[in-house]
Amino acid sequence: NHFLSFVFLYCAGAGYHSESKAKEYKHVCKRACQKAVDRLRAGAMALEAVTAALTELEDSPFTNAGTGSNLNLSGDIECDASIMDGKSLEYGAVGALSGIKNPVLVARRLLSEAQKGKLSAGRIPPCFLVGTGAQQWALTHGIPPCPSEKMATKFSLSAYKRNKRKMELAEKIETEHHFLKRQRTSSGTPISSSLDTVGAIVVDQEGNVAAAVSSGGLAMKHPGRVGQAAHYGCGCWAENAHDARTYATAVSTSGCGEHLIRTMLARECSTAVQAEDAHQALLEAMQNKFIGSRFLASEDGVLGGVIVLRCCKCGDDQSSENLQALLVEFLWSHTTESMCVGYMSAHDSKAKAYTGASR
Amino acid sequence: NHFLSFVFLYCAGAGYHSESKAKEYKHVCKRACQKAVDRLRAGAMALEAVTAALTELEDSPFTNAGTGSNLNLSGDIECDASIMDGKSLEYGAVGALSGIKNPVLVARRLLSEAQKGKLSAGRIPPCFLVGTGAQQWALTHGIPPCPSEKMATKFSLSAYKRNKRKMELAEKIETEHHFLKRQRTSSGTPISSSLDTVGAIVVDQEGNVAAAVSSGGLAMKHPGRVGQAAHYGCGCWAENAHDARTYATAVSTSGCGEHLIRTMLARECSTAVQAEDAHQALLEAMQNKFIGSRFLASEDGVLGGVIVLRCCKCGDDQSSENLQALLVEFLWSHTTESMCVGYMSAHDSKAKAYTGASR
Repeated sequence: NHFLSFVFLYCAGAGYHSESKAKEYKHVCKRACQKAVDRLRAGAMALEAVTAALTELEDSPFTNAGTGSNLNLSGDIECDASIMDGKSLEYGAVGALSGIKNPVLVARRLLSEAQKGKLSAGRIPPCFLVGTGAQQWALTHGIPPCPSEKMATKFSLSAYKRNKRKMELAEKIETEHHFLKRQRTSSGTPISSSLDTVGAIVVDQEGNVAAAVSSGGLAMKHPGRVGQAAHYGCGCWAENAHDARTYATAVSTSGCGEHLIRTMLARECSTAVQAEDAHQALLEAMQNKFIGSRFLASEDGVLGGVIVLRCCKCGDDQSSENLQALLVEFLWSHTTESMCVGYMSAHDSKAKAYTGASR
Repeated sequence: NHFLSFVFLYCAGAGYHSESKAKEYKHVCKRACQKAVDRLRAGAMALEAVTAALTELEDSPFTNAGTGSNLNLSGDIECDASIMDGKSLEYGAVGALSGIKNPVLVARRLLSEAQKGKLSAGRIPPCFLVGTGAQQWALTHGIPPCPSEKMATKFSLSAYKRNKRKMELAEKIETEHHFLKRQRTSSGTPISSSLDTVGAIVVDQEGNVAAAVSSGGLAMKHPGRVGQAAHYGCGCWAENAHDARTYATAVSTSGCGEHLIRTMLARECSTAVQAEDAHQALLEAMQNKFIGSRFLASEDGVLGGVIVLRCCKCGDDQSSENLQALLVEFLWSHTTESMCVGYMSAHDSKAKAYTGASR
């Protein structure tokens, strides 16, 4: 096998990182890179590699996805995840899913079940399942249950208690000032919410792309709240090149779900980077379609980060395989204070991870 | 008050209608039109009028929304609904919601709660809630519960029993032929699924648009399955004109949720009809972005219908109110065998309803 130039790229969130947490993130990023690259080297396609990366990211207690997810208002963990295959353009997603260690595996399974065609008696297979129905579906498809206690961490439990106190205090202040009946004001110390959802984008040796994203959602979210990670076009996007003049693109987003949904940021970025200058196009998209979006005109702080991959096949299709190469560009951008990104190519096999603090 | 030219338009599904059912649909359509127009005449804005129409459509036992919804695999009713305000571009949605008579009212309430700004301690209000969490939220926001037995009808219960038998038979055949392990085939008589979701689009006297959609989902769907009616950009879209050269647009879609999600049909149609010839643009969008979509290449029958409204303010902004007028165009298109649409203007106050059987 000749592994000419396939690359693997991913991110672990667009949140507020402490120095010590940043170090952990880098480690997780590297491990997730390695898992995906191992699969790619074994001949796996992008879809399988991106799933491997996400599973590793979800398993880290430091990320807000799978184990270590933020707790919701009731103290439960409810996860969102989605995955998209650039080759078949198939998509699978789960929202507000409890009791499953790796939500991305359920999304992945929904995608592959849908690829098998219609269900008995002509029924159309679902691409998006939520709540207890999603959990049931996972169990009947052989995905093992995981008790919620195992997915909570010391850190997430203490953050929940701290946030609960902050909320109670804030609500007391608001009631006293009769603000509740008039304009809502957000008084008191803001709760600490990790926005560190995880996502990955991959291109394999054949130029197939795939993207996936997974999130525990905002801390203290209302039960049943679903964010961008389970929303088509918002959390992730992957589209192979459909003719010689287009690029294959893959995108994964992180940040405040409501902002990312209403701007459909993943798909917007995918469309934008079809322009010649991908770097400029992404900056413009972040400025015009996100920070300055008409859809978020009433919001005071727009929080999000995005990783983008685009690639094209260079060289002559007719010539030997060795002369073909993939030209891969990797870009990222964020409006949050920091973002941790990492990447690795199966060619040089050294993972690199960075935490950035600029736009 | 001068009611110069505001119009109200809506639809009741893109499914397979019998003659007798078509008559019922026309009645429901007219009643829903009347409700919305009554509100508009009383000075209500588009958002309120569209909610009134949807409530009436949901309450009809003949539509697959609210009362009379298709039952899912477990024999339960789980509804999806969403609403969008073209003025604020705010959006609210509920998915897989049980035990609430009018799902659109929960979506509407989510939208208006979000408009009030952040929650206590800086929390961002949700725009999309699902499952039991959505139900809890509705109850704590004063929306009364409704026992599921009250929402099921004689018709939906007997369809469920019939479908259940068909499925069991089909699965028996498949197992006997060992098809299950190989390529899935959809053997046996297809189940009868009403695709008759409901939607409405409204423009008020000031040129504000709003859109809403509500659905009980596919018959025998897996519990927790969420369709286009709860998916941003897929079930409905509304956007006021943002400068003098753009139209205000509102769109509502009906049909197979999975197809409508993966093509983001509502938003695509909204974008398309910014072209000069709206009629031609809509036909092209249905052909290129839906029927011939790359995203549905593996599907054998693509089912959907769409109603579209666009309008622009004509006349001179400086002149007296009497000289201003709204120019409103109403279009619809469907790939399904039939679709029932109706419309009414507050000016001539006669509701018209049609069932169409062509594309």
